[in-house]
Amino acid sequence: MNPRRVTAAVLIIGDEILSGRTQDVNLAAIAQYLGAHGVEVDEARVVPDRPQAIIETLNHLRRAHDYVVTTGGLGPTHDDITAACVAEAFGVALNENAEIIAMMRARWGREIGPGLARMARVPDGGVLIHNPLGGPPGFQVGNVFVLAGIPEVMRGMLQDIGWRLDGGAVVVSQALRVETGEGEFALLLETFAEAHPDLSLGSYPFFGARGKGAEILVRGRDAERVAAATADLAAALAAAGVEAVKV
Amino acid sequence: MNPRRVTAAVLIIGDEILSGRTQDVNLAAIAQYLGAHGVEVDEARVVPDRPQAIIETLNHLRRAHDYVVTTGGLGPTHDDITAACVAEAFGVALNENAEIIAMMRARWGREIGPGLARMARVPDGGVLIHNPLGGPPGFQVGNVFVLAGIPEVMRGMLQDIGWRLDGGAVVVSQALRVETGEGEFALLLETFAEAHPDLSLGSYPFFGARGKGAEILVRGRDAERVAAATADLAAALAAAGVEAVKV
Repeated sequence: MNPRRVTAAVLIIGDEILSGRTQDVNLAAIAQYLGAHGVEVDEARVVPDRPQAIIETLNHLRRAHDYVVTTGGLGPTHDDITAACVAEAFGVALNENAEIIAMMRARWGREIGPGLARMARVPDGGVLIHNPLGGPPGFQVGNVFVLAGIPEVMRGMLQDIGWRLDGGAVVVSQALRVETGEGEFALLLETFAEAHPDLSLGSYPFFGARGKGAEILVRGRDAERVAAATADLAAALAAAGVEAVKV
Repeated sequence: MNPRRVTAAVLIIGDEILSGRTQDVNLAAIAQYLGAHGVEVDEARVVPDRPQAIIETLNHLRRAHDYVVTTGGLGPTHDDITAACVAEAFGVALNENAEIIAMMRARWGREIGPGLARMARVPDGGVLIHNPLGGPPGFQVGNVFVLAGIPEVMRGMLQDIGWRLDGGAVVVSQALRVETGEGEFALLLETFAEAHPDLSLGSYPFFGARGKGAEILVRGRDAERVAAATADLAAALAAAGVEAVKV
């Protein structure tokens, strides 16, 4: 286990996300998967299908974080430019990968035309990421994992990156649910947070069936300490007249 | 109408989005709303509840785009630091707003304690953004709109920013749906895109009940031209044996 805090950035590529036409669901799936491997997603960016934006953002993120996961832009159409941009960001050539061409030929039982062949292009030095759905794979270059944008495919590819990660201590969390507006316990929570600097305390408000409420999340790298602090916090809230239920 | 292309960035603030605990739905809602007002969302970023990340990112985005919309971090708890960070980013003081305090007092029928009073803090020069749900408002400072993170509240506040925007020509789109894998028409689409440099052509693959398919989106600022091009494209696809249905 890596003793440092290990961070990642998620780079979501696609005009369709920025136009609001498509609802991204990949960020949450990636964050949960990486979190379970001791890698914290520290920032996420959504960029359009424009080479300069993709290349500059990728080059910034791969230097600022231990890992980068990208989604989108791996298909066969003219707006699928991720592989070419990753190659350019790393300053390496983009080649048609014979292994992928053979894979596609076996899968589709025929010769692969130039459209589909776009999906077989991998930057020099890239290591393939298995696609359990049987389509073309993703690839890894250095600390960057390049995954498909279709959520089903993305989640499949994700399973092939966990073993490549050198993660830190996994962050564990416990949650309390209160059916009270945050204003009623904000100061108590602030005092409690100050007394527990090794833990992270968050309060996430919601509108429930019975009105305002919040989930209070206690997070840390020591499971016992998180459990003890959560119990202490529930008791402190109860003493202040705020019923908190562990969820 | 502004003759230029008018762009915005969306800044999503919150550890809960980056941990995967909460699924963001605000980006898509903001993008659709701004798009209808002739403002294109050109990038989006998700940052944690850390002052430096929020301040630096906001200062970059507000200089790089015509508008910035932020979501999250406006509640009463210690992890709600957006108002303070916006004030620091603009180099102005953060003051308790008497109008908001009076609003809260009227709403809750009692004195407002220091926890809730956090939600009344507005950077100097900030203009309030109405919250139709009755809670504390958001605010605008310069070209930055600061909205709540709870989706219902965020969408309510959004309605009060449209009239403040000086948008460009609204981008209109038409979509064709095909029940064919993208590889079958990628080259045709690329050729068509090259012949229509004033339009943006995107292809968004999906797995449907009947197998692979895609939605092909034709976008542009001239509705007649978009309609004509979409009809031409459907005819070209049909001639190539790919049935395309307008959706």
